[in-house]
Amino acid sequence: MNFNLREALEILERTPQTLEMFLFGLSDGWLHCNEGEGTWNASEVVEHLIEAEKTNWFPRLEFILQEGESKPFPPFDRFTHLDGEKETSIEQKLALFKEIRARNINKLKEIESTLNLELTGSHPEFGAVKVRELISTWVVHDLTHIAQIVRVMAKRYGKDVGPWISYLGILNK
Amino acid sequence: MNFNLREALEILERTPQTLEMFLFGLSDGWLHCNEGEGTWNASEVVEHLIEAEKTNWFPRLEFILQEGESKPFPPFDRFTHLDGEKETSIEQKLALFKEIRARNINKLKEIESTLNLELTGSHPEFGAVKVRELISTWVVHDLTHIAQIVRVMAKRYGKDVGPWISYLGILNK
Repeated sequence: MNFNLREALEILERTPQTLEMFLFGLSDGWLHCNEGEGTWNASEVVEHLIEAEKTNWFPRLEFILQEGESKPFPPFDRFTHLDGEKETSIEQKLALFKEIRARNINKLKEIESTLNLELTGSHPEFGAVKVRELISTWVVHDLTHIAQIVRVMAKRYGKDVGPWISYLGILNK
Repeated sequence: MNFNLREALEILERTPQTLEMFLFGLSDGWLHCNEGEGTWNASEVVEHLIEAEKTNWFPRLEFILQEGESKPFPPFDRFTHLDGEKETSIEQKLALFKEIRARNINKLKEIESTLNLELTGSHPEFGAVKVRELISTWVVHDLTHIAQIVRVMAKRYGKDVGPWISYLGILNK
């Protein structure tokens, strides 16, 4: 096991700023490209991160602390965000994500010293899950979606790189 | 074709700052994990980006401008950086990458208005390659290595996420 709450927090704290540095002020061509029908562009991924921040990670942690395994936490709808406001700018989305994440991190830090990482809750699909597994997943979920944004943008130049495509594995994913 | 020099520059300009935001001050556990023997950790990826910045992208562009297809550009050794200084901190590496990248971007901007994107050079392996393909590859190479760093770090928690692994495709790459 590699999980360590302090190290997990390092990533959770960095994600909004990293995405802001990467996406703030980018051209629409980069922000709105995707991997084909039914796939997300960078801006939609940020909406998804906002939604998960509002209803998934920290709320589920609070749910475990309150209910233990007595009842399963409500399922997370991974597509809710797609009903969201299309007119919101990427800068507004990034700011919102940063704000909600900072609030959740503060709440996590407040309970950090007494948090039992081995405590279990009940996932509607998986059954018993531990607090440390939930927080590990929160971290990896951030990383997954950073990688997704980067991959989607890389593919935009899939044809433009010419023969170099054979060196660039990301374009074949 | 999606390539556009202004948009390509947007990415090239953001990469060092994005990596700095993501990696500066991170614990060694994150900076030194890798995907197994013979694979790179985050710190080694930054060394590779420095090396490519010094000897690959802009130098090759200058080589094309000078030589056209008359002689192939010298091959780029993708592993040179691994002989480098192991004691250099990640913060020093990030600063160096940022500095060399900024210098190359400035040089690119100086020649931007007269740059013929269709000009061809000779790649030692691929044969004729265009200036716009070289610059597109420079961009995608950045994105590839950001994605690599993020993936390597995600895998560190491969077991820690417990049953959630089935939702996290990045862990199976």
